[in-house]
Amino acid sequence: MTSPTSVVGVEEEAVGNASSKVTLLSLKWPVIPASKEAQRTYNPIRAIVDPFLASVQEHDKSYISLALGDPSSYFPPCPVVVQAIQQHLLQSTGYIPAVGMLSARQAIASHSNCENGVPTLHVTPDHVIITNGCSGALELLFRATLQPPHDVLLIPCPGFPLYNVICHSLGCQTQSYPLKYNNETEEWYMDLVELETLLQQPNNHHFKAILINNPSNPTGAVFSKTHLQKFLQLCDKYHLMVISDEIYGDMTLHDRCAFHSLANVRNDMIPSPHVPIIQASGLGKQYLVPGWRVGWLVFHDNIYGTLQSIRHGAQQLAQVIMGASHVVQWAIPAALTSTGPDDTTIVVWKQEWRHKLRQQAHAVERVLRQSPYLKVYHPQGAMYLMVQIVPPRRQSIVKTDAEWTRELLRQENVLVLPGSCFGMKASDNFFRIVFGAPTAVLEEAGHRIISFLEQACVNVTE
Amino acid sequence: MTSPTSVVGVEEEAVGNASSKVTLLSLKWPVIPASKEAQRTYNPIRAIVDPFLASVQEHDKSYISLALGDPSSYFPPCPVVVQAIQQHLLQSTGYIPAVGMLSARQAIASHSNCENGVPTLHVTPDHVIITNGCSGALELLFRATLQPPHDVLLIPCPGFPLYNVICHSLGCQTQSYPLKYNNETEEWYMDLVELETLLQQPNNHHFKAILINNPSNPTGAVFSKTHLQKFLQLCDKYHLMVISDEIYGDMTLHDRCAFHSLANVRNDMIPSPHVPIIQASGLGKQYLVPGWRVGWLVFHDNIYGTLQSIRHGAQQLAQVIMGASHVVQWAIPAALTSTGPDDTTIVVWKQEWRHKLRQQAHAVERVLRQSPYLKVYHPQGAMYLMVQIVPPRRQSIVKTDAEWTRELLRQENVLVLPGSCFGMKASDNFFRIVFGAPTAVLEEAGHRIISFLEQACVNVTE
Repeated sequence: MTSPTSVVGVEEEAVGNASSKVTLLSLKWPVIPASKEAQRTYNPIRAIVDPFLASVQEHDKSYISLALGDPSSYFPPCPVVVQAIQQHLLQSTGYIPAVGMLSARQAIASHSNCENGVPTLHVTPDHVIITNGCSGALELLFRATLQPPHDVLLIPCPGFPLYNVICHSLGCQTQSYPLKYNNETEEWYMDLVELETLLQQPNNHHFKAILINNPSNPTGAVFSKTHLQKFLQLCDKYHLMVISDEIYGDMTLHDRCAFHSLANVRNDMIPSPHVPIIQASGLGKQYLVPGWRVGWLVFHDNIYGTLQSIRHGAQQLAQVIMGASHVVQWAIPAALTSTGPDDTTIVVWKQEWRHKLRQQAHAVERVLRQSPYLKVYHPQGAMYLMVQIVPPRRQSIVKTDAEWTRELLRQENVLVLPGSCFGMKASDNFFRIVFGAPTAVLEEAGHRIISFLEQACVNVTE
Repeated sequence: MTSPTSVVGVEEEAVGNASSKVTLLSLKWPVIPASKEAQRTYNPIRAIVDPFLASVQEHDKSYISLALGDPSSYFPPCPVVVQAIQQHLLQSTGYIPAVGMLSARQAIASHSNCENGVPTLHVTPDHVIITNGCSGALELLFRATLQPPHDVLLIPCPGFPLYNVICHSLGCQTQSYPLKYNNETEEWYMDLVELETLLQQPNNHHFKAILINNPSNPTGAVFSKTHLQKFLQLCDKYHLMVISDEIYGDMTLHDRCAFHSLANVRNDMIPSPHVPIIQASGLGKQYLVPGWRVGWLVFHDNIYGTLQSIRHGAQQLAQVIMGASHVVQWAIPAALTSTGPDDTTIVVWKQEWRHKLRQQAHAVERVLRQSPYLKVYHPQGAMYLMVQIVPPRRQSIVKTDAEWTRELLRQENVLVLPGSCFGMKASDNFFRIVFGAPTAVLEEAGHRIISFLEQACVNVTE
């Protein structure tokens, strides 16, 4: 702060209250700048979407948002986790270890260890940190791992925008590797050939880690065991540690698409690659309680103890703000290691929720595939699918994905998120649909999208 | 990561599972270093206390800890806040704004505005951010405000260690200003003369802000309105923005010691100094729910909008991890703006809790004052008091405060925290006592401390 006499605009005032008067120099205060970290932190979804939300006016059609990944308003949460909180509320007032309640970490460790894996690779509660949601897990982990300005994180494209937000906030860069779509099998996959090309670049020593998101937001991809094995072999070859964002867990849409936790795939290979894996997950999406902010990190180290410094660093950072609320941590053992009637309740609830999601995914796909101006990318898991606008004579329509979505909102009062929110090229005209809403709502929205495109594309050909 | 051929210890192994075999180069992985930020983040209390906790063995006396500021194991939480969570549990599953639930922010804004204040300085919900406990509030605020490496935060000494932990983690420095004790009035105060000397130093342009903690940890100070006015006038003179840690709120031990929120003191002065104030608080200590992690920031700006950049920056940072759990935010309106029977319940509960605290403070003070080898610093609020060991012939006993506390633990199985945890000189032999435990426990601990010092000091004189 500058000395009081060097500021323009000095006024002398008498100051005081009933009991004292003190003469004070009262000077105009400047705006105090925020830190650079704060200034470079921004939400790209808001940057793209807020401008056209701001211009929305009264509409004769009802507002339908297919933009936010929060179906909790449409389907009740898992009753077992709710009950756990109610039962333990009065036991949850005191401080607990910053890395999380022991019984919760035990439940996570137990749940993370696969039955057939190598015992020496089993995790213990010391390998677990409980965090403020899965977003909190990623923020803590990136902060413990990435050294600005040179460390680079490899992230999938398309992918969840938060990875970029956190890295950019920290002052680090990201490098995307592509997800591609196989039109024959109707499956998304990681393009491992292009990934290997990236890993062979001269600057590859800056790649600190690679992030995989499975099941994937925004594509709904669920990667097969074989695909994950090949991915691990590539990471082993280039000594790349992996951050595995598994927030959607076993939310798959087909019985033939099983979810495989990356650490389990690694531990099940003979011999097991030495790729160190840090798994991030939480209760929010799988048990429909995203507002509760219950997440965790699990450090699946290798036999060399490669992750010991990062794990210790993350534990130290966790001590600064003392972790997730004690109240909600009781939900973790209830969700992950219940037995008997509670376990049955969870299984039944999950079946009902999956069944609804599958119906909803199927319904919106069925409607959208009726349009000749849309390519629908079939989802296998999570609650999202990607759609691409394919106008009849592309050279006549030059719009960005944000422009398409703004016009869709204006004409039909339906909100979707443009693909550029997820790293896709704006001119490729992708958008993401969340199918968390009930079938009737999704079908209505689907018909409005089709109708909108009919008008937009027919007008061009005329 | 280095290319695969440049690492020592290459082995070629056949890899595969039942369905495929792939040849893989398996190489020894090095330890991947954590980020510098993680490496420099550490808990000083653990660094001082863990070594002697590690050496504790079986003891014939029961273990008494007067070290942790968490009385929730001894006194039930405020029933109104517990009830609020139970009632709203099923409404708390979905996402809410990252800066916090609107009704909670409205309650905080309403609670923060004093009745007689200038209307233009009133805060609105947009001036409030809800955080993961008060620790989370401070971490978010420091990160939004302090620019490493040059920004310096002025902090009280003795003071809560977290301020240093966060600053050091961010790569910033702190500068302490002293709290002193007036033996006649038996009150702690901020030494404003020494503070002004600091502010006149040539490097004062690095002082980004000053933090005040009232009521104070570890001293139990509660600053009078007059003292706070003088503090504000000094900050105004040197254009120093203030961070006011008010986590203990109205937890005072004497009716004559009233708590004054700094923003209310400012707004009540005529004319009001233009000092911008950011208030940090929460429910944890005042309502006995520290494990819930409910905190907040309130931006009390001046007429020049000095805080607009920092406030915006803090809001952006808050969006990265989406704030405190939705579940516990329902406790905020219940705690702060209840009316009718609920308000009566809160008032009665607070009275009972204050009464107990006062009894407990009085009991432990009464016992400790019996020792000729202790100076007891009378507390006015919070739940702490400082004690100083004064051996008969000081030059014969040269011990640090950590050595005293380790021996006390070893001989009497009583744990207190040495003053060096709070920034005091180790050779000044202070320690902090928490009087959250019941009176009988405190009296027992007090007698053991006296007995310990009798032995330690008598042995010297013999």
